[in-house]
Amino acid sequence: MNIQDIIAKKRDKQELSKEEITYFINSYTKGEVTDYQAAALIMAIYINGMTDEETTELTLAMAYSGDVLDLSSLGEVIDKHSTGGVGDKITLILMPIIASFGIPVAKMSGRGLGFTGGTIDKLESIPGYNTGITIDRFISNVKQNGISLMGQTLNLAPADKKIYALRDTIACTESIPLIASSIMSKKIAAGANKIVIDVTCGSGAFMKTRKEAEELSRIMTSIGKLANRETICIITPMDEPVGYAVGNILEVKEAIDILKNKYMPEDVKDIIQELGANMLMLANKVSSIEEGKELIIENIRNGKAYKKFVDLVRSQGGDISYIEDTDKFEKAKYIVPITAEKDGTITKLDALTIGKLSCYLGAGRQKKEDSINPRVGFVFKKKAGDEVRSGEVLGYIHADDEAKAQEVLKQEFVGIKNGKEPLKWKKN
Amino acid sequence: MNIQDIIAKKRDKQELSKEEITYFINSYTKGEVTDYQAAALIMAIYINGMTDEETTELTLAMAYSGDVLDLSSLGEVIDKHSTGGVGDKITLILMPIIASFGIPVAKMSGRGLGFTGGTIDKLESIPGYNTGITIDRFISNVKQNGISLMGQTLNLAPADKKIYALRDTIACTESIPLIASSIMSKKIAAGANKIVIDVTCGSGAFMKTRKEAEELSRIMTSIGKLANRETICIITPMDEPVGYAVGNILEVKEAIDILKNKYMPEDVKDIIQELGANMLMLANKVSSIEEGKELIIENIRNGKAYKKFVDLVRSQGGDISYIEDTDKFEKAKYIVPITAEKDGTITKLDALTIGKLSCYLGAGRQKKEDSINPRVGFVFKKKAGDEVRSGEVLGYIHADDEAKAQEVLKQEFVGIKNGKEPLKWKKN
Repeated sequence: MNIQDIIAKKRDKQELSKEEITYFINSYTKGEVTDYQAAALIMAIYINGMTDEETTELTLAMAYSGDVLDLSSLGEVIDKHSTGGVGDKITLILMPIIASFGIPVAKMSGRGLGFTGGTIDKLESIPGYNTGITIDRFISNVKQNGISLMGQTLNLAPADKKIYALRDTIACTESIPLIASSIMSKKIAAGANKIVIDVTCGSGAFMKTRKEAEELSRIMTSIGKLANRETICIITPMDEPVGYAVGNILEVKEAIDILKNKYMPEDVKDIIQELGANMLMLANKVSSIEEGKELIIENIRNGKAYKKFVDLVRSQGGDISYIEDTDKFEKAKYIVPITAEKDGTITKLDALTIGKLSCYLGAGRQKKEDSINPRVGFVFKKKAGDEVRSGEVLGYIHADDEAKAQEVLKQEFVGIKNGKEPLKWKKN
Repeated sequence: MNIQDIIAKKRDKQELSKEEITYFINSYTKGEVTDYQAAALIMAIYINGMTDEETTELTLAMAYSGDVLDLSSLGEVIDKHSTGGVGDKITLILMPIIASFGIPVAKMSGRGLGFTGGTIDKLESIPGYNTGITIDRFISNVKQNGISLMGQTLNLAPADKKIYALRDTIACTESIPLIASSIMSKKIAAGANKIVIDVTCGSGAFMKTRKEAEELSRIMTSIGKLANRETICIITPMDEPVGYAVGNILEVKEAIDILKNKYMPEDVKDIIQELGANMLMLANKVSSIEEGKELIIENIRNGKAYKKFVDLVRSQGGDISYIEDTDKFEKAKYIVPITAEKDGTITKLDALTIGKLSCYLGAGRQKKEDSINPRVGFVFKKKAGDEVRSGEVLGYIHADDEAKAQEVLKQEFVGIKNGKEPLKWKKN
């Protein structure tokens, strides 16, 4: 087999075989295929597309290009993934709920990059929480407590890492088959048997339109079927941040408050019900989505989910006193109110702008090597659809640098419209 | 400006501006744009194409990426180029003819690669001929004798060299806009004001079909117009070798015999008349193509073209006695006859197969670093359309290795058909 023939085939819009795709991935991982040959092939794939069968073979070849986590001793593991968003603390809330039903939760998560946050950064803002435990400890934690959340310490899907970095430099990030195979290869390498994916869609997500989100969902579901890993995709809007808090400590505090049943943002409720009910269905714990949705909320109300979260934090070395009393968390130096300039209805809290401003305040990283500031971000009091009066506080900027806070105040990220036309959060 | 935005634009089938193309070429030549970024862009160009304006800007950017030869002291220089073929000794015959009309001939030629030969390799088979003279000597030779043919010693169009080598590794050689810009950039860098191009077409050429040859001609003519270098393209068939000889010394001997008016193969006559008449028109030496065609043959008959060839060889240090008596040239050790297996009409002498076998005998190189054997090749007695009898000699294999000669004899490169259906060389 010859890489030039493979490139020529995709250049001419022909379908690649399993053997050709596997040859490319293995040779590229070993460095026998050069970056420029891979770049030419990736561009041909971007322009000419791939069938679902090709995308599945690419996914599997990348999944098996490095370590593959064996979770078989835990029974059937259902993984959850989100394509990323602003203020997205769903994993922190949903996974303890799922564990509270006796479904094993063994999840490796990533760090944030750009305007979207990462679960591992959020967990590390809990003093003592160790995201870098050994695989043995990871598995024994799941066996003991039913749940463990850790970072990606293994060499999972190295071919995906290489291709992802290459795509970033050659304007090939937005290819839907390439995004689908990248996500699915990591999930498969991380040992999942069944997968529920939150495909975020809107200004604060990678998929800007509903149509793109539907196509990505369709392909990932198809890969799941062909690769024998049942996959369900839920499309959720990401035009405004998820919940009210954006920023690492601020989001952890909100997640804890929700697990303590102190309050429940409408959008968070919809997302955890939709994803959670599908996970309960996949695990054969319920016989209908409606039943699953009720049970998800029930296990918050009865404290079982919160108890699992406490077990999780304790078993990974986290300081439980911070969970019990969230006022103990460090705070940013400046907490600056954002006030309404006029009476009216909030039309938008723009997720993309808020994500970028949060990053600017220090909550996110531009490059992998950057460090983050866990204290900074936003806490809103209102969401789109809420009515406000001129001068009313819409939320707070949490900043360690006063000049940055003032700079953020000058930006446009809240829309207010006069008159009555509430824009409630719309379910999909 | 940013290479990723440029890649994204071509990926999305948009037209690139002059500034974007120049930025790409300059940054790639300097190494600021990586090979993998260039590979992605080249693949996007291959698949999505380029307008004639984009192809012209690419040509000019590559032409000016290195040295540009200044031939202005010679007046208006008309260059001739061939897209390559088997047994193609047209430059050796035509350029002395052109010089014999007082049109300055200052031509840099290349070496052969793969199954096509190169003029410089052929000239170097004349003992003493120096293809590596200085540029000053090159220009003074043209001033004194009206003609000089040398190798490419300057750093002409280095961006083209870099892109050409890259294309070779990423299955992007066959793109017609990229071939057109590669040829034209070298011609412009080599100082031509007006250009006549022999676009070869058939089994022994890079353009296999008439349609491809027409498209390549159309684009090069358009580049010439847009770049203010009047360009005329002539499409000539390359299904059988040009003339009767294939191989370096063998072709030089045939060219000398033709210039001495000893004989004239019909295909060579057609090509030199077509190209030559157009060159005479471009130089305002004649008022019609028909007049030009007559004069081309006239200057062979009257010995003026041969005299120019002798001047050329002498002025570059070549040993004239070889020109005067071509029997002095070295001969291959084995001269093995190829005989007809049956009575009939020759339907083909397959150029591609003969080119590859010639290369196998040692006349060509597979890699740039290979050395060549000037003695080996083929001399045919017959061409397609000629009638033959069983056992009649069709030609001779010239080989230094008897086993190789026997191997060549086993190959199929001559077709003979019973019955009367002559396939004469068809003019285009």
